[in-house]
Amino acid sequence: MQQYCTECGGPTRLRVPEGDSRPRQVCSLCGHVHYENPRIVAGCIVAEGDRVLLCRRAIEPRRGLWTLPAGFMENGETVEEAAARETHEEARAEVAPEALFTVFSLPHIDQVYMLFRARLTRPGYAPGTESLEVRMLREEEIPWDALAFEVVRQTLRLYFADLRQGRFGIHVGDLVRGEGEPARYECRLLGAGR
Amino acid sequence: MQQYCTECGGPTRLRVPEGDSRPRQVCSLCGHVHYENPRIVAGCIVAEGDRVLLCRRAIEPRRGLWTLPAGFMENGETVEEAAARETHEEARAEVAPEALFTVFSLPHIDQVYMLFRARLTRPGYAPGTESLEVRMLREEEIPWDALAFEVVRQTLRLYFADLRQGRFGIHVGDLVRGEGEPARYECRLLGAGR
Repeated sequence: MQQYCTECGGPTRLRVPEGDSRPRQVCSLCGHVHYENPRIVAGCIVAEGDRVLLCRRAIEPRRGLWTLPAGFMENGETVEEAAARETHEEARAEVAPEALFTVFSLPHIDQVYMLFRARLTRPGYAPGTESLEVRMLREEEIPWDALAFEVVRQTLRLYFADLRQGRFGIHVGDLVRGEGEPARYECRLLGAGR
Repeated sequence: MQQYCTECGGPTRLRVPEGDSRPRQVCSLCGHVHYENPRIVAGCIVAEGDRVLLCRRAIEPRRGLWTLPAGFMENGETVEEAAARETHEEARAEVAPEALFTVFSLPHIDQVYMLFRARLTRPGYAPGTESLEVRMLREEEIPWDALAFEVVRQTLRLYFADLRQGRFGIHVGDLVRGEGEPARYECRLLGAGR
């Protein structure tokens, strides 16, 4: 939790600045207001025929479980550049994002996932430093019980449904975490009954 | 520019943390790494028949110029909630976002715009505190020379093109600022020739 001002080093406290409606960390010496905003996680669904590239995580959280290559977008990038960079870092794959596929808000962790369909621009892939293993898998080979994140599960579910239909949409929605443990999520898609 | 650590108040300096590839503000006392990431600007294209709701800005930057209601997404929200909230704040309009319409990366200012097509869920609109004036305008009434932002101009251009075709897409791309003044932008759409 933020306790000091980034501009003067003075102590901050949580209060609603004048003209604002939300509490922010405000410096009690210089008055600087510190905003915090959701982060974008960008990544790729790299497809070859009916197979999709998955990475087995070498890092926490969810070490040993499978995920799509994705990570935090950096300043100075476009979302597509971030998606391609993360895919190169985690799967040593050179890709071109071709179309947006899912946009999922995860309000309980202040993240927005943006996952693109992509193709390899040169053959080959291999584990990056954050991956134990990288594989191209068919729908029936996906380790559904060993996926790292619900957003990955929902994206793969939508991807293979669209692949069977022969037509890809752009799916926009929210993954809302319910109360209690283990975690349960409600997947609400925009334009799907709301 | 950040100069002090949010966790201990110590002086930070810009350096590449171990295992990272980018310079970050790192605390020289406690070692805390401060990340900065792009922010999402969420907003709405509120349509009634062939008209679209625009706001004339009461605040800087671009005071007096016209824009779509939009603003920074906050923690704890979904993108659609942020878009609806900003529309209520700036245009006192109650809306339901129905479909994503444009996603534009603006890498020169570390922003990603996400604009939704939306409809009024109850009649009426009026200037919020950040707007001088709110109006529903037809394509031929749009003040093309008095729009606040290039991303708004591109979104309206795509919107009215789709409206004439009778079919709305989801447009994903980048607005890349060229060198020099006045500002010039290149609009690159994903799936449109790249």
